[in-house]
Amino acid sequence: MADAPRNDLRITRNAGGWALLEIARAPVNSMDLQLWRQLTAALDELEADPQVRGMIFASGLRRDVFTAGNDIKELFAPLTSQQRYTQPPPLATLPVAGACPAGGCCLSMCCDYRIMTESGHIGLNEVALGISVPKMWAGLMGRIIGTGPADKLLQNAVLLQPQDAKDLGLIDDIAPKEGLLAAAEEVMREMLKMPDGGRQATKLNLRADFAQEWAEFAGPEAEGAWQMLSSPAVVEALGEVLQRLSGGRKPGGSGGGGGQQAQSRL
Amino acid sequence: MADAPRNDLRITRNAGGWALLEIARAPVNSMDLQLWRQLTAALDELEADPQVRGMIFASGLRRDVFTAGNDIKELFAPLTSQQRYTQPPPLATLPVAGACPAGGCCLSMCCDYRIMTESGHIGLNEVALGISVPKMWAGLMGRIIGTGPADKLLQNAVLLQPQDAKDLGLIDDIAPKEGLLAAAEEVMREMLKMPDGGRQATKLNLRADFAQEWAEFAGPEAEGAWQMLSSPAVVEALGEVLQRLSGGRKPGGSGGGGGQQAQSRL
Amino acid sequence: MADAPRNDLRITRNAGGWALLEIARAPVNSMDLQLWRQLTAALDELEADPQVRGMIFASGLRRDVFTAGNDIKELFAPLTSQQRYTQPPPLATLPVAGACPAGGCCLSMCCDYRIMTESGHIGLNEVALGISVPKMWAGLMGRIIGTGPADKLLQNAVLLQPQDAKDLGLIDDIAPKEGLLAAAEEVMREMLKMPDGGRQATKLNLRADFAQEWAEFAGPEAEGAWQMLSSPAVVEALGEVLQRLSGGRKPGGSGGGGGQQAQSRL
Repeated sequence: MADAPRNDLRITRNAGGWALLEIARAPVNSMDLQLWRQLTAALDELEADPQVRGMIFASGLRRDVFTAGNDIKELFAPLTSQQRYTQPPPLATLPVAGACPAGGCCLSMCCDYRIMTESGHIGLNEVALGISVPKMWAGLMGRIIGTGPADKLLQNAVLLQPQDAKDLGLIDDIAPKEGLLAAAEEVMREMLKMPDGGRQATKLNLRADFAQEWAEFAGPEAEGAWQMLSSPAVVEALGEVLQRLSGGRKPGGSGGGGGQQAQSRL
Repeated sequence: MADAPRNDLRITRNAGGWALLEIARAPVNSMDLQLWRQLTAALDELEADPQVRGMIFASGLRRDVFTAGNDIKELFAPLTSQQRYTQPPPLATLPVAGACPAGGCCLSMCCDYRIMTESGHIGLNEVALGISVPKMWAGLMGRIIGTGPADKLLQNAVLLQPQDAKDLGLIDDIAPKEGLLAAAEEVMREMLKMPDGGRQATKLNLRADFAQEWAEFAGPEAEGAWQMLSSPAVVEALGEVLQRLSGGRKPGGSGGGGGQQAQSRL
Repeated sequence: MADAPRNDLRITRNAGGWALLEIARAPVNSMDLQLWRQLTAALDELEADPQVRGMIFASGLRRDVFTAGNDIKELFAPLTSQQRYTQPPPLATLPVAGACPAGGCCLSMCCDYRIMTESGHIGLNEVALGISVPKMWAGLMGRIIGTGPADKLLQNAVLLQPQDAKDLGLIDDIAPKEGLLAAAEEVMREMLKMPDGGRQATKLNLRADFAQEWAEFAGPEAEGAWQMLSSPAVVEALGEVLQRLSGGRKPGGSGGGGGQQAQSRL
């Protein structure tokens, strides 16, 4: 028996030439295979629509969370779907985000401009869970903020506050939660003043090699991830995290270390 | 019948061991194939001169323009000659510049130290014209200021004011137009205090791989550029630009989007 | 007859799970083949010890010098041993340093977190000696602070003061000499709060490709270095440096240009 079909995404087309895509899977937009598949389908649909030149990703939740990251119960399962996002889409893409660890950070990094709420945080904090940051995610962060700063953040599982993230170039702007969408729309309008052709080709020039490297690494990455995830030490570490999450204030198995902020001297 | 031979470059040798190369092709030093060839010949000549250890590039124009970039009427034609510049020359190179979009920015980025006038601007603004930033130019900017900041600038066709360019590391210094050459000469004297051998070999260590990658990409780049430039959308977009330029205050087809500054939230 | 065995390293194991490794070869911890071999052996020993999860490198000298760099009398001889350090060790590594030119800078750059004394300096100043910065050292600095800033520093043989080094990201913290070790231990304790597995795998994800590239380049690098070092110009330049050092205030052939700070407009 198949699961009942469901869709956690709301798509709203704007006359200005872009679409708003809201992710609303309570409680914390955990990214499991199903959600990644929905995202992939949405991207396909919007790319095929000649009226849509850009996309704004937002959380449809009331709480200030973009996504808590990959569901810890099926870490790395969504690999293939994620890679769909690494291919630079012709659309101008722009996520607006509250809390944004791990998988949510990765989705954001694939976009063109990032705006975060004043109380959000962002980063790849896998190391705090005893698992490794996927190689190409680490590489992607290195491309955005530099290899040196990325090395420091990732080894220490740092989740950055908005101003620190902006100073490092991991996000581009900060806005109050109530003004988040308006700020994103203003940026989107600016981006779409430019003709699409040159921007799209330039984006490919900038990112296609890395996207291809990522796609080619899918096989080795999945194998390595499986080996890591099935090792006794990691199984035990993740088990503890799951137990803690299920018994604590964040029921439902929010993944990727959502609310856990590693202390670190950066 | 061949064109009458002409030369738009003035070369002045300085007893300190360097040469000043001034580009003086009124009105805005548009870079067409002929000018790129002259630049190539000048580089060859100066490299072969054992008395010349460094080069300062400057505009020989009265107005505060280094070069308006590639002539829009023959965009990408000068490819091969440009690549001559990507091979790290043994000379210490130093451009001093006013307005410096597109091709002028690229020439500057191939050098070792960049000084700009207080009223100049610099960037690769191809996207505003509906065309793409050549892949290796984009890569070169990424090497200088980081891939993340370059991505943002290029997608939005940003021309940077001097202080922003300095903050990002795209230029190294700012000087008033009347003090520009003196500032450049001071830097050149400092650079030449060091023996040449170690600096030259270090420059090769730093840049030779990228230069080779660039040279190998010449074929694919020319093909791709031709396809792009002959596409109906781009032909139309560039036609509009040319028409606007020829009817406006910038006669003579200055290229590369000289005076056009894209508005952008960076 | 073989040299009498000697060891210039002191290793102290800390109950917190790390080892302190002090380098004490008077007068300035010049790094010759023998010292590199000792360092390699120490790394092997500590990596094999399950009680040791991290390493702090420090100078055991009274004076504020981490190491003056490779001994100029056998520059590049220690290549193979150095490469041992380029492979990202599973240990958390952390050098604390005073004066730190050339080889000392390279050793530091291979580590995970760098703390320097208030009166130290750091950089790769080979160009001031008329020799080139080894290609992979240049690449390593580029990875840490960005290719653009590294290009500028290396061509001009700049040794950075602590605050400038911190601003560029070449070091992470500054401490007074008397508080150096305490500061390092605090950082180490923070790093070791995280489980080792994820951090180690992440470190590999971040650095293994570069380490492999470095290892593969060992052959060509040694050949190139030999050609450079045996060229008449370099032999003469280094001869002058040695003569100056042996006649001046720094007897004993401290290498890598220890106390020489190139003047440069950066």
